[in-house]
Amino acid sequence: MTQPLKTYLHERQILVDRALDRYLPAASVPPTVIHKAMRYSIFAGGKRLRPILCLMSAELCGGKTAMVMPTACALEMIHTYSLIHDDLPAMDDDDLRRGKPTNHKVFGEGIAVLAGDALLTLAFELMARVPSGVSADSALRSIRLISEAAGSQGMIGGQAADLMAEGKTAHLSPNRLKSTVDYIHLHKTAALLRASLLAGAVLSGASAAEQKSLDVYGRNIGLAFQIADDILDIVGDKKLLGKKGSDRENQKLTYPAVWGIDRSRRMADRLIREAQEALRRFGKKANPAIELADYVVRREK
Amino acid sequence: MTQPLKTYLHERQILVDRALDRYLPAASVPPTVIHKAMRYSIFAGGKRLRPILCLMSAELCGGKTAMVMPTACALEMIHTYSLIHDDLPAMDDDDLRRGKPTNHKVFGEGIAVLAGDALLTLAFELMARVPSGVSADSALRSIRLISEAAGSQGMIGGQAADLMAEGKTAHLSPNRLKSTVDYIHLHKTAALLRASLLAGAVLSGASAAEQKSLDVYGRNIGLAFQIADDILDIVGDKKLLGKKGSDRENQKLTYPAVWGIDRSRRMADRLIREAQEALRRFGKKANPAIELADYVVRREK
Repeated sequence: MTQPLKTYLHERQILVDRALDRYLPAASVPPTVIHKAMRYSIFAGGKRLRPILCLMSAELCGGKTAMVMPTACALEMIHTYSLIHDDLPAMDDDDLRRGKPTNHKVFGEGIAVLAGDALLTLAFELMARVPSGVSADSALRSIRLISEAAGSQGMIGGQAADLMAEGKTAHLSPNRLKSTVDYIHLHKTAALLRASLLAGAVLSGASAAEQKSLDVYGRNIGLAFQIADDILDIVGDKKLLGKKGSDRENQKLTYPAVWGIDRSRRMADRLIREAQEALRRFGKKANPAIELADYVVRREK
Repeated sequence: MTQPLKTYLHERQILVDRALDRYLPAASVPPTVIHKAMRYSIFAGGKRLRPILCLMSAELCGGKTAMVMPTACALEMIHTYSLIHDDLPAMDDDDLRRGKPTNHKVFGEGIAVLAGDALLTLAFELMARVPSGVSADSALRSIRLISEAAGSQGMIGGQAADLMAEGKTAHLSPNRLKSTVDYIHLHKTAALLRASLLAGAVLSGASAAEQKSLDVYGRNIGLAFQIADDILDIVGDKKLLGKKGSDRENQKLTYPAVWGIDRSRRMADRLIREAQEALRRFGKKANPAIELADYVVRREK
């Protein structure tokens, strides 16, 4: 990662971490166990990619940080709740996440389910508190597009398709395999990344053309991000990743499993080039977004 | 139940059921398993109490049904998601709900977790679609008060406190027992019932005084409802209830366990009288609400 991008991301991570700390109930608020569990997973070392994409989109469209910060943090809460539920024994059954014991390993399964539910609920509470400079109509539109991206025809739909495909890949035709892995990836990861960018644009009062550019960028880096994740799960350094390669153990349907590693890499590269192309209208302001797109496929964890 | 109340509830149940069917994705929409699971629990014979309270509140404050129907259905989705997650093996571990196999018994635990998540997410998507006649600001205020009532300091907080208290009641002092059972009941059930009434008022543009009356009514019938539920779990007909008395098996902290059945009944009766008193300002229009309050403590299932 280049130094300017490193600085760009780091500055925003700090802002997001501070805001998350402000928005989450203190660990001393009863019932303390639920607030400890929510904070445990939120502050477990996430990269804050979704909030940063939301802030970045606002910057490109002339919005101020304060106008999108509640929604940026809500996106991180939605992402974190999905990880907590995804790690449960009934789902991926993971003991480690980013090198730390998963939520249910620390707090028990019941509290982990509730902590996830509470993060999702708090996300919407936050989005409904509208900062000055944002119209109520834009806030409602942003809530609609994020809930669609996170719902049964978005992220949750991707997780359900993933769960249903597990162990059943041997029975599928090659074409069916490809369409299924596309569905899972577009929905499980790309939908919320795309919504992060669109929400930042909508809350900033972006033009339709600006929204369209960020939509293409978001969809493409979202899909490339998931392909890179799948490749890392196979070739990555387990210590850097902080987890074992559970996708292979669970016989998950992944891009490299369907297309092979080399072809998956080429697909990710092409998606990134298209994403960068879509940002042309923003000129030099888009440099961090262009660099970030490169990083999405080159990262090692 | 009197015939007028029966008719009043039945007419609204039909409207709510029709609207739920419209708002939920069809069972044929992919991934079909998640939409089948969502529909299974939504159409498993619920009384639609929360939607009806929301509609009733709107009627008292001069609002139209169409202005509150999306939120009324969202409340049923939030209630249903909480039941699906509450029934999971990691929580109450119930096999039956209203005489039918629970969601995870039919669809497996992983899909049950996701179906609950999807209902909660869809609830907020619905609330963010604002019907004509409702201001965007009222819609946002309604989303805020419902998310607070459903969140870690509302319904989920009550469930977490319930989960933590299980089997530990022997170590608590009598005063601590009483404050804990109060906390659990006020949060686990009363918070969302109260929010159902308040949301109906807010969306209908009710005055502050009207909102206050419905707030008192909602809080009181909410608490009385949970006390009646606890008593039914002990003395009720298991066939009518459609479940076994799992509270006792799980050593749950309940009103009758702490105060005895007779005293619990007197408390519920007093709450109901206060609730009815609070509706005086609405005159004859409040008759169904007054009768419904009586029914809440006299019901047999």
